[in-house]
This record gives sequence, C-alpha cells and structure tokens, in this order.
Amino acid sequence: MEVANELKAGAEAYIPEGYDPQLYKIRHSAAHVMAQAVVERFPGAKPTIGPPIEDRFYYDFDLPRSPNEEDLAWIEQRMKEIIKGRHPFEVREVSAGEARELFKDNPYKLELIEGLIQGGYDEYGNPLPDDEQPKITVYQHDTFVDLCRGPHVPHTGYIKHNGFKLLTIAGAYWRGDASKPQLTRIYGTAWRNRTQLDEYLERLELARQRDHRKLGRQLELFTFSNKVGPGLPLWLPKGTIMRETLVDFLKQEQLKRGYSPVITPHIGRLELWKTSGHYPYYKDSQFPPMALDDHEGHEEGYLLKPMNCPHHIQIYADKRRSYRELPVRLAEFGQVYRYEQTGELGGLTRVRGFTVDDAHIFCRPDQVKDEFKDAIDLALKVLGALSFEDYRVQLSLRDPNDKEKYTGEDAQWEQAEQAIREAADEMGLDAYEALGEAAFYGPKVDFMVRDALGREWQLGTVQLDYNLPERFDLTYIGSDDKRHRPAMIHRAPFGSLERFIGVLIEHCGGAFPAWLAPEQVRILPITDAQADYAHDVRARLFDAGLRVEVDARSEKVGYKIREAQLQKIPYMLIIGKREMENDAVAVRLRTEEDLGAMPVAEFLEMAKTAIEEKRDL
Amino acid sequence: MEVANELKAGAEAYIPEGYDPQLYKIRHSAAHVMAQAVVERFPGAKPTIGPPIEDRFYYDFDLPRSPNEEDLAWIEQRMKEIIKGRHPFEVREVSAGEARELFKDNPYKLELIEGLIQGGYDEYGNPLPDDEQPKITVYQHDTFVDLCRGPHVPHTGYIKHNGFKLLTIAGAYWRGDASKPQLTRIYGTAWRNRTQLDEYLERLELARQRDHRKLGRQLELFTFSNKVGPGLPLWLPKGTIMRETLVDFLKQEQLKRGYSPVITPHIGRLELWKTSGHYPYYKDSQFPPMALDDHEGHEEGYLLKPMNCPHHIQIYADKRRSYRELPVRLAEFGQVYRYEQTGELGGLTRVRGFTVDDAHIFCRPDQVKDEFKDAIDLALKVLGALSFEDYRVQLSLRDPNDKEKYTGEDAQWEQAEQAIREAADEMGLDAYEALGEAAFYGPKVDFMVRDALGREWQLGTVQLDYNLPERFDLTYIGSDDKRHRPAMIHRAPFGSLERFIGVLIEHCGGAFPAWLAPEQVRILPITDAQADYAHDVRARLFDAGLRVEVDARSEKVGYKIREAQLQKIPYMLIIGKREMENDAVAVRLRTEEDLGAMPVAEFLEMAKTAIEEKRDL
Repeated sequence: MEVANELKAGAEAYIPEGYDPQLYKIRHSAAHVMAQAVVERFPGAKPTIGPPIEDRFYYDFDLPRSPNEEDLAWIEQRMKEIIKGRHPFEVREVSAGEARELFKDNPYKLELIEGLIQGGYDEYGNPLPDDEQPKITVYQHDTFVDLCRGPHVPHTGYIKHNGFKLLTIAGAYWRGDASKPQLTRIYGTAWRNRTQLDEYLERLELARQRDHRKLGRQLELFTFSNKVGPGLPLWLPKGTIMRETLVDFLKQEQLKRGYSPVITPHIGRLELWKTSGHYPYYKDSQFPPMALDDHEGHEEGYLLKPMNCPHHIQIYADKRRSYRELPVRLAEFGQVYRYEQTGELGGLTRVRGFTVDDAHIFCRPDQVKDEFKDAIDLALKVLGALSFEDYRVQLSLRDPNDKEKYTGEDAQWEQAEQAIREAADEMGLDAYEALGEAAFYGPKVDFMVRDALGREWQLGTVQLDYNLPERFDLTYIGSDDKRHRPAMIHRAPFGSLERFIGVLIEHCGGAFPAWLAPEQVRILPITDAQADYAHDVRARLFDAGLRVEVDARSEKVGYKIREAQLQKIPYMLIIGKREMENDAVAVRLRTEEDLGAMPVAEFLEMAKTAIEEKRDL
Repeated sequence: MEVANELKAGAEAYIPEGYDPQLYKIRHSAAHVMAQAVVERFPGAKPTIGPPIEDRFYYDFDLPRSPNEEDLAWIEQRMKEIIKGRHPFEVREVSAGEARELFKDNPYKLELIEGLIQGGYDEYGNPLPDDEQPKITVYQHDTFVDLCRGPHVPHTGYIKHNGFKLLTIAGAYWRGDASKPQLTRIYGTAWRNRTQLDEYLERLELARQRDHRKLGRQLELFTFSNKVGPGLPLWLPKGTIMRETLVDFLKQEQLKRGYSPVITPHIGRLELWKTSGHYPYYKDSQFPPMALDDHEGHEEGYLLKPMNCPHHIQIYADKRRSYRELPVRLAEFGQVYRYEQTGELGGLTRVRGFTVDDAHIFCRPDQVKDEFKDAIDLALKVLGALSFEDYRVQLSLRDPNDKEKYTGEDAQWEQAEQAIREAADEMGLDAYEALGEAAFYGPKVDFMVRDALGREWQLGTVQLDYNLPERFDLTYIGSDDKRHRPAMIHRAPFGSLERFIGVLIEHCGGAFPAWLAPEQVRILPITDAQADYAHDVRARLFDAGLRVEVDARSEKVGYKIREAQLQKIPYMLIIGKREMENDAVAVRLRTEEDLGAMPVAEFLEMAKTAIEEKRDL
C-alpha cells in the first residue's frame, strides 16, 4: 500500500501544466473504463493507447470490425454500470518479464514495453543498475488491467455516470505512422458533473454550426476538388473578395509604414534551398523536387517554395546595400506549399498550399527594437480591426540552460532579447515570457488569440533570425565603410491567410463585419413594379463603392429576407411602393433590427461610415 | 538558260507574303556572299543554312573556332570585294547523285539532301515518276556553290557595298535541337542603299536603349537570380508597384463588367491535366511532375500549372448551374509555369513563370456574341489606357479546306465564326480575317499591336473553346430542364503580364504615364533649410494618394534633377527659400518642361487629374 501511494502521488507529475488535475484524472480514468467496455463488446479487441486531451479523451483500438451506433450505445451503457460499481484504481509496479506476460496477446502493448525497457541501458548498451531502471507500472480497475503511468481517480465512481459522453469514431495509425496498421479511435468527453457536460456539449454544437468548412460551403467562400488535390483550396468569388479585402487592408497599412512590395516566383532551384537549409532537412514536409534531366547530377531540379524568405533574400542581395538605406522591408503575400499528411488536412486551418502575409525586414542591430515595435503595433492593429479583443502576447525566448540548441552568439541573443523586452515594455503590453519557446534561429513574439468560442490560436508572429543572413552571407556597408551583417526579421500579422480566415469565419460565425462582407447590401424589391428602381439604387450604391446585389426573383419578400439572412448579408434594403415614391429604402440589418425607411443618400452615408471605420454594421 | 530562267522565276514563290521581294533577294544573296567569305577565312568551315529573316539575314556555320572582331572585320571587307565583282547568281538543277558529290564534305548539306529526296517517294515507299520528283537546285556565284532554292538578285552588285553590315554572333543548334551540334550563327543586315541601312541601324540603337532588360535594371523594376533559376523574374519594389497598378486597373474594369474573381493553387494532380489533355501531350514544355511515392502507380503526382483553365473549370463544376446564372465569368491573375528552353529566355518577353490576366467565361451559345463584344471592348480599353494606338484586330478563323484539323461540329463553328464577325462588325472594328489561324479548339480574336518602334506584337486574345467543356463534361440546366453544354471563352487583354510589361517598357522607353510610374513625384529641396518643408509637402501628397519621395541628400540640385530624370520620374518639385515661404513648389516635368512655381494645392490638383484621366503627365 505504501508503495502504491507513492506511485500514485508520483503520477500527478504527469498532468500537463494548465490542465485541471481533477478533470485530467477523470478523463484518463474514463478512457480505461471505456477500454474495459470495448474489450467486453469486442472479444479479441486490442487496446493500444488512450490519453486525455483538451476537453476530451480517446482510446485507440485494434478491433475486429468498425463499431456502429448500436455498439457505441452498448459501450456507453456498460460504462455507466462500471462507474456505478465504484471499482478502485489499483497501481502496482511490475518487472519487464511480468509486463510481457500480462500483455502477451497484445503486440502493441509489447512494443510499448520494449520501448520502456530500452531506456534501461546506458550509452554503451549496458543495463542500468536496478534503482535506475525505468519503472513499469500497471493500473487495474474491476477486470481491466492497463500498462499505464497514471494518474487516476481513486475509484470509478469519481467519473459521473451522467457527466461523460462518447462523441465520435475516427481512424488513426499506430503511432501516427501511415505505414503502420490503422486503428479505431473512439473519442469521449468527461466532466465533473452533468451541468459541465451539458455546457461543453452546447459549446461543441455552437462550434459545429460555426465550423468554417460548413460555413465555407454555405456562404460559397471556398471549395476543394479531388482532381486538384486535397488541402489545396479553390477560392470561390465571395471568398476571393473577402480575402482580397483583407489583403488590401494590410497592403495599405504596410504602405504607410514604409514596406516595399515584391513579387517572387513559386519555385526555386534546389541550390537555393540547400543554401537556406530547407533541403534536404525538411524534405518530408515538402512537395518532392521537380527533377530535371540536365546531365549534371541527379539532384538538379526545382522545388515548390515552402517559404518566401530565400527569394526575398535574393532581392536584398541583388545590389550593394548601405547602412543609410536600411531598414529594407520587403513584403509579399506569398503562396507557399508544404506536404502535410492527408490525415492532417481539414478545411482551411491545415492545408498544403497557403499564403503568408510575409515580410522580411533587413536592418541594423540598432534598429531591431523599433522594427519590433512597429511590427507588433501592426499585428495588434490587424487583430483590432477584426474584433479579436482577447489575446496574449508571448515573448518566446531562449532556454538559458540549453544554449547549444540555438544558433547565433550569446551577446547577440542578450541584446536581441533585451530589445524585444523593451519594445513590449515601451508599448505598455501585457506580455509574458516563455523560456525555451524561441526558434533555434532567434527570439520571437507570438500572438495567442482567443476566439469567440474561447479557443486559443497562435496567429501572427514576429521573429528575429540570425541564421539566414549568415547562410546567405548578407551584408551592408556601414558608416565605417566596412561590411556588416544585417539582422533579419520575419513577420506575418495574419500568419497564414488561409488559417486566419478559417479562424475568423468561426470567430464571427460567418457574419463578417460590413467592410469584409463579400456582399454588403442586398436590395429586395417587394414586387416586379419596383425592379427598375431597385436596379437604379443598386447602380448608385455600386458607383459609391459598395458591393451590392438585387434579388429580383418573383418570390415572396419574406423568403428573400430569409435567404439573405442565411447568407449573413449585413444590410437588406426592402423596397415597396412607398419607398420607390420617396427615393427611399427600408433598412433591415442581419441582426434582425429594423431601421425603417430612410432616403437612399442617408443609408449610403451610414453604410460607408461603418465600412470606413471597420465597425461591424 | 531557258531552264534557269524558269527556275529563277519559280523561286519567287518562296518569298513570304508581306516581305519586300527585292529586300528578300538582297538579304538572301548577302547570306551567300557572307558564306563565301567565311569559308575563305576558315578553311574547313561547313555552311549549314542561311535564310533572310525580318530586317536581317543569318547563316549558321560549323566552324573550327569562334570568330572574333578581327575575323568579322575581315569577312565584311572581303564581302565588299565580292560585291564589287558583280558575280552573277547562276542556278542549275542537279540529280541526287550530283548533289551528294558536290557536298560530300559537308554532313549538314548531305542531311538536307536526304530530306529533299525523301519527298520523292509515294506513301508505299515507291519512287515517284521523274516529273514528280522534287527538284534539287544549287545556286553559284563566284567560287561559292550552295544547295538553295532561291531566289537571288541577278548578280552580287545588287547588294550595295555600303548597304549591308554584319551585326552579331550567336550560338545555335543544328535544326534548333539542343541534342545536336552547336553551330555559330552570324547575323547581318542588308538594305537597298546606305540611307536605308543607316535608318535601320538608328532604329536598332533606339531599341537597344529602350531594351526592357536594360531599363528594367536601370529603373529597378525586376531582376533575375541564378539561384532561383533562369526565366523566373523577381519583381523589385518599383516593378511590383507598377505591375499592381496595372492589375488594379484591370480588376476595377472587370468588376464593372460583372466578372467574379477567384484564386486557385499553382499545382494540380496529374489526373486534372490528363483530363484537360495538357499531360502528357505538352510534357516537353512543362516543368516535370512532382512524383509522389503513393504506392498507387508511377505517374501519380502533381504538376505545376501551365495554365489556369482546368482550375477554373473545377470551380464552374463545383455546383449545378442554371441557364439563368450564365454567363459565369471567372477571373484570376494566375501565375503559370512553362519550361521554355534556356536559349529562348530573354528578359520578360520569354520567361518560365508568367502571369495570365486570365478569365474564363462560361455562357450559353446565344450569349457568345455579346461576350465577345465585351471582351474585345475591354481589350481595346486596356490598349487605349497605355497609348498603344496602332493595332490590328485579327479574326482567326478555321481553314475551310482542312476541317479535320479542328475539334467541334461544323454547325457550331459556322455559328461561332458568324457571331465573331458580327461582333466585330457591330463594334465598327477594322478587323481582317485570317483563315487557318484559329486554334484547333475554336476561333479567336487576336490583337496585333505596333509599338513606338514600329514592331508588331501579338498581345491580348479572346478565344472560343469547344474542347475543354467537352473533356470536362461541363453542363448547365436549360429552360427546358435538360442538360446543355456551355460555351467557354478564354480571354486575356494583357496576355502575359510579364510580356506585356516588357513591351510596354520599350514602347514608352521606361517613361511610364504618371498613373503607372512607380514614383510619381520627387521633391528636391535646394538646401537643408528646406528639408522639413519638403517632408511636410511629401506627407500632404502621400495622404492624397500620390507615390512621392524626398531626395534630401546634400547634393547640388542639378545633380538631383539629373538622377530623377534618369529614373524618368514624371514630376520633380524643386523647393527653395521662395517656394517654402509661399507654400509652393517649382514644378519640372520629365519632358524637361519647366512649369514654374505654383501652390502645392494647385500641383496636387494637376497631378491627380492627369493620373485619374490616365494621361501621360
């Protein structure tokens, strides 16, 4: 008992920082209870691994067949019984031999056991002394024994029979490796009580309704085609208009801040990527090279660009640079391509082709702080314009205890980190420092943004880079007439345009602020008699720069309003006999607020102001 | 003699239409005279072929070594002597055996002779009767005999000794095939007399000064990097601004005309290109596929897109289309990639990555005429805005005697060609018909544009396509509730943005109209005392939307003006003590016209009007 208590206490250390410990244990235990029920339902089922994840838990099984609805209902019911049994979770330490015997019918667990044992050798391959051997522990409740390091709740009753729910089934590869067997993953969620569970399910339903893949189709923003390929979005007209409006907004901001736009090709010779270090080191996450038979060597060819930096560097290096012309800020909305695994693709948030709102700032070391300040200011302006009000600014710094992991010299790092701290300070930012979160090539500032559903996303970033200026031997001529190495800053306020738009769609549930809405105004004549007048109003609004359509179909106006509402169009202008006589429109907002009739000019003024000020409506 | 005269008369038929017959013969004869001199200078030299081309002639030789300046001077001098010898050009017909004997030391000529003889067999491989045998003729003047079909001038004196000039030396492959031996090509030009020659050389010098590659570097518009790859332009900030201004102009026009913007990826699965027919048929002019090891077959992979059509088709096909929503006009400034041979690359006019101002119009057959009219109107508007005033509109139609060359049905073609004729007619265009110039997939309208140097370029195009809607099985639901095949129109007013800009740079010699100039205004304070005021003026002009810089260096104002002049900046604002006191600027145009001092507001009004109206200045 003494040993078991010690083991249980030690297991608490495995709870990730920031995770509610009680919820972690409830979910971990629920995964074991689920596994017991699954094994009972599917004799011969082989459980593999089953951890808690954010808000949920899952367990991966090798099953004789796919579970159906009926199976899930049975498993859920059986779990309730096991929970009510209040079976204690018992832990014990076992030897490698015992462990192998316990799981002799489960090759997955055996593989895990061998992995644990491998840690038991020193660097010459000699077994470690007994007291340094890794511990193998198993947890048991009721009839179910699992290879597990814990921690768990004291007994199954701590999971509430009305506080958990099985959610979905998905495929997953053993150890995430597509060349290994495919397993069945069952997801569930568990909470302290029914109220918490219901709240979570409600949030889940809201997220489902706001799912950008669903809204993307409903609002005709983007699509995918199997012939073009997975993860390669095709932007439909409405999505393109929204996207270009976002891009134009940032372009204008960048123009004011002294950025220089550039355009570079989507490919480059392998040599470029060898110099940059992206090839062959990141080969697996890139599209394969286009090999050319040029009789010079088998690796000659072109690579689809996985990032824009080396191209911008070629532009910087195209001429001799003087300290007087720095900083040089090269900006491009550059489409890049990376070969994500098919299983990881989903809507816009993980794609194989995406557009970085990229800029590379080449500057003197003494300019780093001001450049960081301006880049941070721009990133915050972007978030503000899109009503992301809830964000954290993370200063991602070097791990001072593991300096070998990083390129660049000590003094450089200290100076740079100091500059970044001061930048955040002088801007009065509520930033926090994250040690060890820097890139290997330099410190950075990341924007962690919470959306309307409470989920946190890493969106924009500002990064200092000591690596690429070195690799490409970039220089500028200083006031001393000597060659100096410039600092290089990568920054992207949106990050990936595709991912940003995916998050934005869910953040506002597809109801974009008026300045971004693909169709800002829809004119709805009540009868055919108002059609000409409707087109006349349209022409006036169009000439004033609004995105406006007329729905002149012979449908009931109520039907037309419902459709416009589903399309989340900010302004609906209803036109009947009276409006036509008075050169007026009856204004209805997508919030269902009715502003009544007003002269066309007054509506135009109102809409233009909202758009200019980037207000919602 | 009788036979020779007949041969000579028959040879006239080989002069291309539109080529001045006398100049053609002078240049053709000059090529022979040059070949004689080359053979005398380089014993063992092997002449291959040497035709007249536009304004010039050349001859390709297999030489023991590269000719240098001294060789060229010698050859030119020797040619003058041969010309003065007034040697007659004699023609005679020879048998295959005689021909082989005459050129037994020249494998190139022997290959040409075998090619000629191959035409002397019928489809079963039997020799044709004697009177149907292809004729082999040789032309001789002085000591030089050449395999040649003519025609030539009566004697070498018809070439004027001061009416010709050797121009350049270049490399060329035998029969243009990179796997064959490399030859030395010597270019020359020849005219009726010295005056004509001098005029031509002057035009050539002007073209050299306006060479867009030279201006592109001088004005910092674009560059190339060997690490990125040949033929892949990197757009520098000033070139990007100019290019984006052009793009925005067309975008605005397209918005007014009901086009829908889309954005599609730069790659697509091979399957897409197999359906479209672009793979493997155009394999040689494409970058090779990115082959993926997906265990499904060796040809699985992705292709860098050589055109945008199949992607736009996927968007059209993404949903069911009704006759009511046609035409659907999908527009994208889509960057495409083609693998041109290295030898063919030069500046922006022939590249491996270029941007098509592409749109695809999917419409009903009864809408074709109106869509052509609108597309033609847009193309002409674009040409007008860029002061290309001299153009011809070509209706490229089917060759009625060779209908098998074309896809699509007879009735369709007749209807379409009629529609295009009517479109041109109703627009009052001075169009001409070119039979046999249609694409295999449909008739088209091409815009042949003459630039300021008198050279003709094929820029924009509007094309009807019967092929792709068929291959992708595109449909719409007609008013009869049945499926119909839509017509598809490809159109690009610029054609390739890169090529168009290359031509535009040479057309205006880099002095872009104010609305396009990357830097529209440069402010030149005379002393440091005016620097603050200069920056104040800059801020006012910038806020009003002008692209404006200050040259605040401590240089003489005359020096600063010269630099601004070299950069072809439309407006120079010179600011001295007096201007500062009066809130004025002294305006100097890049035409060197001096407008004197005027209030800042007055200048702003003037510049903005010129920009809005797309006037030069």
